[in-house]
Amino acid sequence: MTKSERDKMAAGEWYRCLDPELDALRDRARKAVHQHNTLPPDERGAIAPALKALFAAVAADCFVEAPFHCAYGMNITLGAGVYLNAGCTILDCAPVVIGDGSMLGPGVHIYCAEHHKDVALRRAGLEIDRPVTIGKDVWIGGGAIILPGVTIGDGAIVGAGAVVTKDVAAGVTVVGNPARVVR
Amino acid sequence: MTKSERDKMAAGEWYRCLDPELDALRDRARKAVHQHNTLPPDERGAIAPALKALFAAVAADCFVEAPFHCAYGMNITLGAGVYLNAGCTILDCAPVVIGDGSMLGPGVHIYCAEHHKDVALRRAGLEIDRPVTIGKDVWIGGGAIILPGVTIGDGAIVGAGAVVTKDVAAGVTVVGNPARVVR
Amino acid sequence: MTKSERDKMAAGEWYRCLDPELDALRDRARKAVHQHNTLPPDERGAIAPALKALFAAVAADCFVEAPFHCAYGMNITLGAGVYLNAGCTILDCAPVVIGDGSMLGPGVHIYCAEHHKDVALRRAGLEIDRPVTIGKDVWIGGGAIILPGVTIGDGAIVGAGAVVTKDVAAGVTVVGNPARVVR
Repeated sequence: MTKSERDKMAAGEWYRCLDPELDALRDRARKAVHQHNTLPPDERGAIAPALKALFAAVAADCFVEAPFHCAYGMNITLGAGVYLNAGCTILDCAPVVIGDGSMLGPGVHIYCAEHHKDVALRRAGLEIDRPVTIGKDVWIGGGAIILPGVTIGDGAIVGAGAVVTKDVAAGVTVVGNPARVVR
Repeated sequence: MTKSERDKMAAGEWYRCLDPELDALRDRARKAVHQHNTLPPDERGAIAPALKALFAAVAADCFVEAPFHCAYGMNITLGAGVYLNAGCTILDCAPVVIGDGSMLGPGVHIYCAEHHKDVALRRAGLEIDRPVTIGKDVWIGGGAIILPGVTIGDGAIVGAGAVVTKDVAAGVTVVGNPARVVR
Repeated sequence: MTKSERDKMAAGEWYRCLDPELDALRDRARKAVHQHNTLPPDERGAIAPALKALFAAVAADCFVEAPFHCAYGMNITLGAGVYLNAGCTILDCAPVVIGDGSMLGPGVHIYCAEHHKDVALRRAGLEIDRPVTIGKDVWIGGGAIILPGVTIGDGAIVGAGAVVTKDVAAGVTVVGNPARVVR
């Protein structure tokens, strides 16, 4: 039996993004994102119902400012008290777990997806995904970008505008593009 | 008599962001931002009425493209002819003054707020704010980030994507992450 | 016969942005952008009708995620199968051509416009524009910024968060701020 593109995606293998099953999942996410981003703040609350229903899990006391964007939503897990400021974008083609008490500044982007570096295979639509894991009590400054496969340890601080290409150990502060540890 | 969290915030002291009075002020800002970002352009005009009413002061001939985001709004002062391109974000937990004739490119972020670097105090919700002052005739390139406490002098130029961590003298050009003076 | 500001803009000369004819063209673009960004995803489809009508040309199988922003729209040409992820912003004061099969990550910004570096001339509203050309099968990572006049060759890769200040040769990978070639 052949694996579906969704199965390959979930298994961390190369797959084709242009696929009816995956298209339908992204369409579902677009609708939930649209609800979150257009509802009046009073009706949206801490997170719009459709977006909350889409996420893998949302613990107590989370708050997601609008606008927000995600690719699938279904791979996002928010721990207790997680705060995402306006304009955060999560390309959750693989699991993205954000631990209890972590705070993301405005415009933080988290990417799980990579296209193929070989131009012919990229043209053929090949993509691969790696999970992103953010520990507890992490502070990610506004405009920072977290790349596929990165793990950020508990209590770490990521400076505003940093581009995080490698794992960040617990309690450490990183800044810059690419992000480097601050002594 | 005890200071309220709002009083502490205004005094530039450590305070707790999760506070009913501050929540209500942020809710008011969310409504004004929502109006600005969803009204048809013809009705929005140069700046939506609710957003204009929220700001500390808006001089003549300002223009704020949608979308825009701010935390409180009440701490923002725009000089005459100030132009903010689409996607600008101002976390105005302290006063943000933008001088006459200054222009911000798309996606410029200005932050006044810092969380505590000590993880236990950060978890407890401690935050401190420092004002940002932008002089007259400043050109801030798109995607630049201005950090808490920064003052940018008259006529300065900030390159696109720069992360401004220190004061910028009048007439100077800075670029990069962190931003450095261009000779 | 005197050149209009629009003529000067199109000729790549210094011009004044605050001009009734140019204001009207930007207003038209704001309406199309508003339609694209507020229509429910089902009605928006791959690109909202008003935005498609505004662009210089849109080849088959393009997809523009919402939100999107552009200054005029009329100077944007998308090749076949071009994909723009959420939050892309194109200041198309001069022609912006994106070749077949190229993919832009979320929040990619492309700028054609520059203000004058002389503060008195900048205050007088002088602006100049240079075209941006992106080849075929280019992958531009999320949050990257492409500056005025840049040409990116076929099959090149621009890393997430890169600030591209110079031309990028075909097949090359660049990263960082400013962007540098990766060996």
